[in-house]
Amino acid sequence: MTDRVRWAERELAYEFSNPRLLDQALTHRSASSENNERLEFLGDAMLGLIVAKALYELRPEANEGDLSRARAALVKKGTLAEIGRQIGVDKQLTLGTGELRTGGAQRSSALADAVEAVIGAVVLDGGYQAGELLVRRLIAEPLDALPPSDELKDAKTRLQEWLQARGHGLPEYNVDDVSGSDHNQYFAVSCRIDADERVSIGQGSSRRGAEQAAAEAMLIELQSGDQ
Amino acid sequence: MTDRVRWAERELAYEFSNPRLLDQALTHRSASSENNERLEFLGDAMLGLIVAKALYELRPEANEGDLSRARAALVKKGTLAEIGRQIGVDKQLTLGTGELRTGGAQRSSALADAVEAVIGAVVLDGGYQAGELLVRRLIAEPLDALPPSDELKDAKTRLQEWLQARGHGLPEYNVDDVSGSDHNQYFAVSCRIDADERVSIGQGSSRRGAEQAAAEAMLIELQSGDQ
Repeated sequence: MTDRVRWAERELAYEFSNPRLLDQALTHRSASSENNERLEFLGDAMLGLIVAKALYELRPEANEGDLSRARAALVKKGTLAEIGRQIGVDKQLTLGTGELRTGGAQRSSALADAVEAVIGAVVLDGGYQAGELLVRRLIAEPLDALPPSDELKDAKTRLQEWLQARGHGLPEYNVDDVSGSDHNQYFAVSCRIDADERVSIGQGSSRRGAEQAAAEAMLIELQSGDQ
Repeated sequence: MTDRVRWAERELAYEFSNPRLLDQALTHRSASSENNERLEFLGDAMLGLIVAKALYELRPEANEGDLSRARAALVKKGTLAEIGRQIGVDKQLTLGTGELRTGGAQRSSALADAVEAVIGAVVLDGGYQAGELLVRRLIAEPLDALPPSDELKDAKTRLQEWLQARGHGLPEYNVDDVSGSDHNQYFAVSCRIDADERVSIGQGSSRRGAEQAAAEAMLIELQSGDQ
């Protein structure tokens, strides 16, 4: 039995029939063309399903939007990387020499990808039930710590609900300025509401980000007037 | 046995233990607060997993990007709506009176959502194996007709690969103009390449769309020079 197989029994509570799948799941693309990218694709889909089912059961009052936001909060890179650190994926990962030298095993993306790839490997090796058991084990803590639905809403949604609850019209967003090129863009957005003809401004590297910032600024202004 | 349960046996080859799940899956949000939106969320995730697994098995040479593009092409709204029409979901769907009058049962979004919700209902009623059987049955034809990986690449990707294969640098995209507000935006993007200092222009209602149009225009120009 290899070290990795022992590691999987200890940390994943799963015994691999085909340890080569586990090896592949723990091989970063910098190390080999037979790497974990395809397994990551499969594991990501399995994670998405099991988290969807867990949330469906746990939050019977949540609507589709609530469920989507809750899942996005749970499966984000930072959460998966933290899970990876807790089970020691960083010590199992095979990286190319360049990646290794620059601390690649600690990078959140490498850890998160490897966690998803390990899930994919278990699905292929042991089927859906084994995969579900593993995912439920890995997400138990973050699922427990997940905030309620209302707190997961973004600023634009919260602003819209705040206005609707008070009988006001929808906010209007306008891109006032775009500059920069391709991967280095700058957006300035203004948010305008009927109530008191207020205007707030948001900035960001994407239109969406700038709109969220403008909505957040508007909410802060409105809610300070509430008190 | 209800009409719907009989329909499910005939078209889905699945017998529901709890027919209320099937009723809920076939209830549009316009008809009731107990509608199919939550089941759609679950079914969408199940569909994503099974298509991921099917593509993983069918396309051993495909990389993660190829697999993602292939899945996106398979699970898009138009394909799901067409599946819905073929199995007669439109005749099973319960809609609110307003939706019904305006032909809501034929709308692609209502059909696609109901197909996903039915998948979600089968997963809850019969487990993953039953869900996988159903998904594989529903996607068999579109999966068979799916174009090879290369044909699924978007214009920006194809342009990048064309340039790299000939030793040229990456294209540069620049937003030259943005106008309009919120849901009615207009983007003009230019695409510039080192080779011959060529420039092409693209327009669209999103930056991404305008970039794709500019890349497509550049490819047409470059490939006409190839012949």
